[in-house]
Amino acid sequence: MGKAPIITPQSEDFPKWYQDLLNKAELADNGPVRGTMVIRPYAYSLWERMVSEVDARIKVTGAENAYFPLFIPESYLHREAEHVEGFSPELAVVTHAGGKELEEPVVVRPTSETVIGEFMAKWVQSYRDLPLLLNQWSNVVRWELRPRTFLRTSEFLWQEGHTAHATSADAGAYARRILEEVYRDFMVNVLAIPVYVGRKTADERFAGAINTLTLEAMMKDGKALQMGTSHELGQNFSKAFDISYQDGEGNRQLAWTTSWGSSTRMMGGLIMAHGDDRGLIVPPRLAATQVVVLVVRHDDAGAVGAAAKTLVDELESAGVRVKLDDRVDVQFGRRATAWELKGVPLRIELGPRDIAEGLGTVARRDTGEKIPMKLSELAGTVAPALERIQNELLSAATISRDDRTHDVSTVDEIFDAVEGGFARIPFASLDEAAITRLSDRGITVRCIQTADGEAPEREDEPGLIALVAKAY
Amino acid sequence: MGKAPIITPQSEDFPKWYQDLLNKAELADNGPVRGTMVIRPYAYSLWERMVSEVDARIKVTGAENAYFPLFIPESYLHREAEHVEGFSPELAVVTHAGGKELEEPVVVRPTSETVIGEFMAKWVQSYRDLPLLLNQWSNVVRWELRPRTFLRTSEFLWQEGHTAHATSADAGAYARRILEEVYRDFMVNVLAIPVYVGRKTADERFAGAINTLTLEAMMKDGKALQMGTSHELGQNFSKAFDISYQDGEGNRQLAWTTSWGSSTRMMGGLIMAHGDDRGLIVPPRLAATQVVVLVVRHDDAGAVGAAAKTLVDELESAGVRVKLDDRVDVQFGRRATAWELKGVPLRIELGPRDIAEGLGTVARRDTGEKIPMKLSELAGTVAPALERIQNELLSAATISRDDRTHDVSTVDEIFDAVEGGFARIPFASLDEAAITRLSDRGITVRCIQTADGEAPEREDEPGLIALVAKAY
Repeated sequence: MGKAPIITPQSEDFPKWYQDLLNKAELADNGPVRGTMVIRPYAYSLWERMVSEVDARIKVTGAENAYFPLFIPESYLHREAEHVEGFSPELAVVTHAGGKELEEPVVVRPTSETVIGEFMAKWVQSYRDLPLLLNQWSNVVRWELRPRTFLRTSEFLWQEGHTAHATSADAGAYARRILEEVYRDFMVNVLAIPVYVGRKTADERFAGAINTLTLEAMMKDGKALQMGTSHELGQNFSKAFDISYQDGEGNRQLAWTTSWGSSTRMMGGLIMAHGDDRGLIVPPRLAATQVVVLVVRHDDAGAVGAAAKTLVDELESAGVRVKLDDRVDVQFGRRATAWELKGVPLRIELGPRDIAEGLGTVARRDTGEKIPMKLSELAGTVAPALERIQNELLSAATISRDDRTHDVSTVDEIFDAVEGGFARIPFASLDEAAITRLSDRGITVRCIQTADGEAPEREDEPGLIALVAKAY
Repeated sequence: MGKAPIITPQSEDFPKWYQDLLNKAELADNGPVRGTMVIRPYAYSLWERMVSEVDARIKVTGAENAYFPLFIPESYLHREAEHVEGFSPELAVVTHAGGKELEEPVVVRPTSETVIGEFMAKWVQSYRDLPLLLNQWSNVVRWELRPRTFLRTSEFLWQEGHTAHATSADAGAYARRILEEVYRDFMVNVLAIPVYVGRKTADERFAGAINTLTLEAMMKDGKALQMGTSHELGQNFSKAFDISYQDGEGNRQLAWTTSWGSSTRMMGGLIMAHGDDRGLIVPPRLAATQVVVLVVRHDDAGAVGAAAKTLVDELESAGVRVKLDDRVDVQFGRRATAWELKGVPLRIELGPRDIAEGLGTVARRDTGEKIPMKLSELAGTVAPALERIQNELLSAATISRDDRTHDVSTVDEIFDAVEGGFARIPFASLDEAAITRLSDRGITVRCIQTADGEAPEREDEPGLIALVAKAY
């Protein structure tokens, strides 16, 4: 006799599974203003780990963090034509402040190209000031008509990088370095999410970009999630904000700029790339809590409690992020289920009977395996076990994604392929009419790739492949 | 013959000194919307260090980080009468979003008691859910008529803690623990700023609090800066938002809440507590760069560059946060001045002549001392030198503050004492008329203390002292 499921099974209703998981694992709530969210402590601890891992990689590329204002004069948005057109429908506007109506309304930043462009123009004088490599961690606001927690919210948290370079080549190389060394490396090696990298088609580019590079992940329902983007902005913002420098010969030149971002959307990706019907599954390298030591119940002699504490200390000394759960006044089954819901990679369960036999039970969240192990050997096996789980999560996700990525040659085949997966089709075979037919059914070109799966330098190279899917 | 000063001397015009320093040390700029600021990379690196040190201390007290929305329904503010009265004049209001006028305007959070109160009410059911200890790092907006960078800006960065407790005693003890173990410990032991702790008078309390504990520092011009506050909110917000729990006997009880915050204002405190006419002085424990190794110029054999790299490696291995400056195409004097402006605690200058003699010159930012030292002994002496500087900065600031804190017994004596310092006066001697006389001249009671300089439990204890000053 099976137990009633804690959350709606994925196969029954994927969006409901997602919503149930957010609630039951205490990840997030809806804010009181439509489209906003509350990130609860457990989810926020995962976000903090994402921030720290992404931030370290950004700093390796030489970028420095700074902070620019939340409020931007409305007129700034208008200086770059494509940019204002892209963002106008999503803006939140402050019209009153300090008890009166403002002379000029200010917008709440939807992204900071414009205000950062203004300051880059001030700070960049000579070629010696280039490249100027800036990054900012902040909140941004884009009013959403169909909000969905983490995936599409009216306010979200993100990092946005903004750089200025002396040459187009340098800007292009840097945008690609961010794609590869920051985003791809983090997503594959920490989140254990295999990502397709590629170039957006002109239609799908960021408002004001001449090239948008993207990372696209496949969720468990076969839909795509854009996990991060890196844009070459050409000289569009340099022209609009006069970001110029004196070159070695004393001539005035316009700079070339880039911008790139990743956000709390990655939380949604994490949930939907790994989660199952028992809840979230957190890859060990990301996990804020990698191991929970669970006291099943105490014995009179206090041996279980003592063994648990010793084990926790040993694991901490070994550099494992571990938590002790000895709340024995709460039913053991309830606690075990809660840790499963939260996706902690390993549970070690200790009860009086185990201790008497010198054993502990190791439960692996991803596979569900439960193995009794000698207490004396436990501490030494945890670190390699976590590494194994990390690697197996990535392989499982990669196999599952590859299985559901179908090579096709006609638009009609795409319709089948994107029910539960992605389609790969020669880019040359997608004319405007085909794109329209797809888009009418909510299907988009996620990116274009070279034959060996990399982001192409140009959109008109021969032999390019389009990755096509339904997307979040 | 003296050189022309880089920045206005403090004695000539302190506010201008502050403004010059912000510009010349590349710390901050004014944002395009009045009252907002841009925090430039060097200043932001100091803020990141503040965040990491304060955050670690907050986590030790058991609080967890979370994130609540930027936008709050205007109606929430109205639920607690004193709170809305306190904040209404400072609110920024979004009236339009997504291309239309909103049905209910939303305010940009000036602080998050109200929205967090709403969720605490949801999450707290039983006494088992208490204490609920939350913290948030975020931006907030309070429209400022007389903005001053870091000290008083329309948008600033901060952490705000919010906790709910079963009893008044538990809430009070926690608010005090934050004051002592988080704020005071950080300010004294990392910022090297001696702070007076005390209780705000009823007039000066946070809007909605029953007790506000504060930390007050003396700036170099003798004015006070409030560096952080910790509030007991009693049951005011519990009543307004129905934060209640079932106690052990099954009865419904209202919770007791606290809130506490520290902000980018501490950046202003850092600048004005330690800075001198040559620029900022950063205490070593805070410094993102503790030591800069400066190549004066290169020799043909490359011995200087090699020695500099070796030294940097040795210092890094010893856990010192060190930077190499070998930009020899920029004049040495200019670079040395720039590092002085930025307040890096130690410079080690290496030139061809030094290297030939096996020496390096160690320059201490705070005292200006320059000492030639054997290269082979340098790495080992840096860590203890940094600790010595840290301690001496704190003693110097403490001595200077104590020298300028004057015991007085009449209001007239206060007028003299607060020109360049603080006055200590028996609290009982300040009646309403005296407070008004002071306030007419821009002088306020910063806090009340016990005779031995601690925050009193109550305002009506005998023998209390009022600390009185002009304040930022």
